[in-house]
Amino acid sequence: MEATLKQFIDVNIPNIEETMYQLVEKIEAPAHLKESMLYSLKAGGKRIRPLFVAAVCEAYNKPLDSSYVVGSAVEMIHTYSLIHDDLPCMDDDELRRGKPTNHVVYGEALATLAGDALNTLAFGILARLENVSAEQKLELVHLLSVAAGAEGMVGGQILDMDGEKRLLNLQELETVHVNKTGAILRFSIESGAILAGASTKDREALVEYAHHIGLAFQIQDDILDIEGTSEQLGKTAGKDVAAEKSTYPALLTLNGAKQKLTEHYDFAIEALQKVSIDTSLLHQFAQYIVRRTN
Amino acid sequence: MEATLKQFIDVNIPNIEETMYQLVEKIEAPAHLKESMLYSLKAGGKRIRPLFVAAVCEAYNKPLDSSYVVGSAVEMIHTYSLIHDDLPCMDDDELRRGKPTNHVVYGEALATLAGDALNTLAFGILARLENVSAEQKLELVHLLSVAAGAEGMVGGQILDMDGEKRLLNLQELETVHVNKTGAILRFSIESGAILAGASTKDREALVEYAHHIGLAFQIQDDILDIEGTSEQLGKTAGKDVAAEKSTYPALLTLNGAKQKLTEHYDFAIEALQKVSIDTSLLHQFAQYIVRRTN
Repeated sequence: MEATLKQFIDVNIPNIEETMYQLVEKIEAPAHLKESMLYSLKAGGKRIRPLFVAAVCEAYNKPLDSSYVVGSAVEMIHTYSLIHDDLPCMDDDELRRGKPTNHVVYGEALATLAGDALNTLAFGILARLENVSAEQKLELVHLLSVAAGAEGMVGGQILDMDGEKRLLNLQELETVHVNKTGAILRFSIESGAILAGASTKDREALVEYAHHIGLAFQIQDDILDIEGTSEQLGKTAGKDVAAEKSTYPALLTLNGAKQKLTEHYDFAIEALQKVSIDTSLLHQFAQYIVRRTN
Repeated sequence: MEATLKQFIDVNIPNIEETMYQLVEKIEAPAHLKESMLYSLKAGGKRIRPLFVAAVCEAYNKPLDSSYVVGSAVEMIHTYSLIHDDLPCMDDDELRRGKPTNHVVYGEALATLAGDALNTLAFGILARLENVSAEQKLELVHLLSVAAGAEGMVGGQILDMDGEKRLLNLQELETVHVNKTGAILRFSIESGAILAGASTKDREALVEYAHHIGLAFQIQDDILDIEGTSEQLGKTAGKDVAAEKSTYPALLTLNGAKQKLTEHYDFAIEALQKVSIDTSLLHQFAQYIVRRTN
């Protein structure tokens, strides 16, 4: 990882996490509900989504405080989706990032409700942002609702479940990922552009960048499932192959998937060239996404 | 039921339902996800929450269009909570309003996700309200997030689950209901006051009315579990007693619960007397709540 990005991540992850934990700690709710919510929020992860919100604000030389709050909301949505995804009635996973999943620790009922509470809290947080105009806040609430709901992440999970029953074609697989993981990644980058007051032209180019980064992220995930070790990944490697899941390597071969990854990386970099500001940090972020080993 | 209220309900339920169904039908999402969301929205119910939003606007002689949209958002939150509540890991109910529950028809995974999608959609709908100021919309998003989340409904469900393991005292039981069902009922009435542009004094009195109506509603629910038939209720009567659940009749005897119901009804009516407008419709609504047989 390039030094500038590494420094940016090292400085900002603690700020993001502190903001996010405080947003949960300060609410008045039953202690074990808060504990269950915080357990999954604190279970680690690369914080890629909130880092993207902050990175776009940083690229525009804007203060990062609001980006930590918006990033916290995004991470809450991401985390609730993992809690529900891991439930016995969904993927039935007992380990996530090397730790017992929420329902293993707190039981299924509490895990379901902790996920529901995180989903709900994310929207309340956006509505109460400071130093952001009312119109911008409403746009963020609207965009997050679309990105996280039936038209975005939840819809993508449904398509993904359908895809487990048969081999998808490349276009169908892309639709799954554009919705399941892409929509929230896109929101992360677009919300940064909104907070930074980016021009319409810049914002469109950043959304294009987000689209390709989202697909590159997913292809690298599929590749890591084959090439990574369970230790590196913090989850069982080779699970997709064992489950005969529709993945890029399954559809394109491993080399074909790597070529596709490079294509999306190149498109992402091309999109950045249309943006009016210095995008070197976002360029480095794209490299990090395609080169990551976990 | 008094004629004015009956007419109000008969006219407005179809408007509310049409608004609500269209808000789901117009989204672009996998067909069976939308079908599962609509299945539970269409499974009936008294629509008390959206009717309250509309009734407050009606009392202020305001147009009802926005109240149907806000009422739809509230009903989506209420419906998602029922879908998740009915799941095997929660109450494990196979019938709701005399019909098979969502997971019985669509499976647990889809039911969980349909609930998640309804929760998320509710906030997006509020952010896109027409003819409502940006500040009002943000206040609605914030209040719904608090009412529906860890500090309100979800927190109340947790307390209710804890209460199944031991007999609660009266204060604890009241806390359960103020959160579990009261918070959303309060939002329904307060959101009507916001839409109607009620004065702070009126709004505070209406919130007081909402508080007592919420408790009266719950006490009547407990009484009906004992005095109603399964046919009337559309669910198994006598379930609370069988489960040795903490209820008002269990704590106060059946007569004591009826007295408590009358007390909260009287407080609700007293609160209405502080409101500057003609509250006869809300008065009738309070009567309907305490006299209902299902």
